[in-house]
Amino acid sequence: MDFYKNEPKTLLAVDCVILGFNGESLEILLVKRAIAPERNKWSLMGGFVQDDESPERAASRVLKKLTGLTNLYMENCGIFGEPGREKRRVVSITYFALIDTKQYKHILSEEYEAKWFPLNDHPKLIFDHEDMIAAAKHTLRTKAALYPILFELLPEKFTVPQIASLYECVYDIDLDKRNFSRKLLASGLIIKLNEKDKNSKKGAFYYRLNMDIYKEKIMSFLRYLPGWSTE
Amino acid sequence: MDFYKNEPKTLLAVDCVILGFNGESLEILLVKRAIAPERNKWSLMGGFVQDDESPERAASRVLKKLTGLTNLYMENCGIFGEPGREKRRVVSITYFALIDTKQYKHILSEEYEAKWFPLNDHPKLIFDHEDMIAAAKHTLRTKAALYPILFELLPEKFTVPQIASLYECVYDIDLDKRNFSRKLLASGLIIKLNEKDKNSKKGAFYYRLNMDIYKEKIMSFLRYLPGWSTE
Repeated sequence: MDFYKNEPKTLLAVDCVILGFNGESLEILLVKRAIAPERNKWSLMGGFVQDDESPERAASRVLKKLTGLTNLYMENCGIFGEPGREKRRVVSITYFALIDTKQYKHILSEEYEAKWFPLNDHPKLIFDHEDMIAAAKHTLRTKAALYPILFELLPEKFTVPQIASLYECVYDIDLDKRNFSRKLLASGLIIKLNEKDKNSKKGAFYYRLNMDIYKEKIMSFLRYLPGWSTE
Repeated sequence: MDFYKNEPKTLLAVDCVILGFNGESLEILLVKRAIAPERNKWSLMGGFVQDDESPERAASRVLKKLTGLTNLYMENCGIFGEPGREKRRVVSITYFALIDTKQYKHILSEEYEAKWFPLNDHPKLIFDHEDMIAAAKHTLRTKAALYPILFELLPEKFTVPQIASLYECVYDIDLDKRNFSRKLLASGLIIKLNEKDKNSKKGAFYYRLNMDIYKEKIMSFLRYLPGWSTE
């Protein structure tokens, strides 16, 4: 019996918004598209969902092919299925991934001419790929308020100027750096280490995240709900 | 030119987790499935994404067909695409919607034998529809911590026992009611009205949400980030 035989079938794709932090600014990994249409134009890295894999595994496969990396922080950030978005009918599920670029850039695949660009200054992209980036930024902002995912982008130890740059990139804001430092330090959210960054001009101290305080700050708002867990 | 001609095509469906609050407990709207396979079994309301609509519009169409309602609060809460989830390869995008059932139950469609069940006591569902409900609950819990979406489920004025029941249903917890009331009132989050619920045994007072305090409580955690908005 051919159930559903009168229902339309669709090409289902995944596209990956791969964001990286190089210690100073937020970057996005783009590729030159290897297939028609729009061949050789800048694009997010994508691929089609195969019959024997879930969309999430398709995204992992695409990411691995491009970066060699597995087990990245990866999350769905939108479904792009407007009928006119490509010349052919393709519904795309978009994922974003977070990478510490300093740690990983050496294993980027050459095959796709993959290149890191500043997140706020990259070439024009095909189809609705810029909307996908906007969706990834929106998801990142919302999640970053509740979970310490921004720290996926930072090395284990980081300087205050580094984290200020990261927040400036994600939230598209200019921070008053002194004020930001003062509030961040007063929050108890980060712990000063006995070591300086030798690459920075003034020799900024390294810090690490205080996970206990982070959780505590989230919980203080939710405390009147017994049994609540952020998991 | 037939771009992508060697790529697999997939049946793309939407399924809707429709949650309602009847003033006392949280309910889910289920239908008896009208088509094979699994005909006549209890199921979430779903449908196939057509070539001329986005998945989101497909979900709105399905919701309207079943409830007569438009402009419901609706949000994607997961993508279900494991190869073996149905006998045919179908990838489903799941949405959840929130309804005040007292306000809307009169216009439910008869065609699908749609019926409200207690969220924690409903018949066994086909395929992976129970996982879809679990995904909706997870999204609801996370969002409810940051945004006042639970109040989409409440009438404009509500009693403290009503909101306690709602939180008990969403978070699967037993609240110490006296303690909950005391903390909720102390939070300033709700404002007492000069009117009692005549249906409740002890004549509980009505309240409404204090949106200013709600936003303030969210912002207190985020204050060290200037320029942050929860939008």
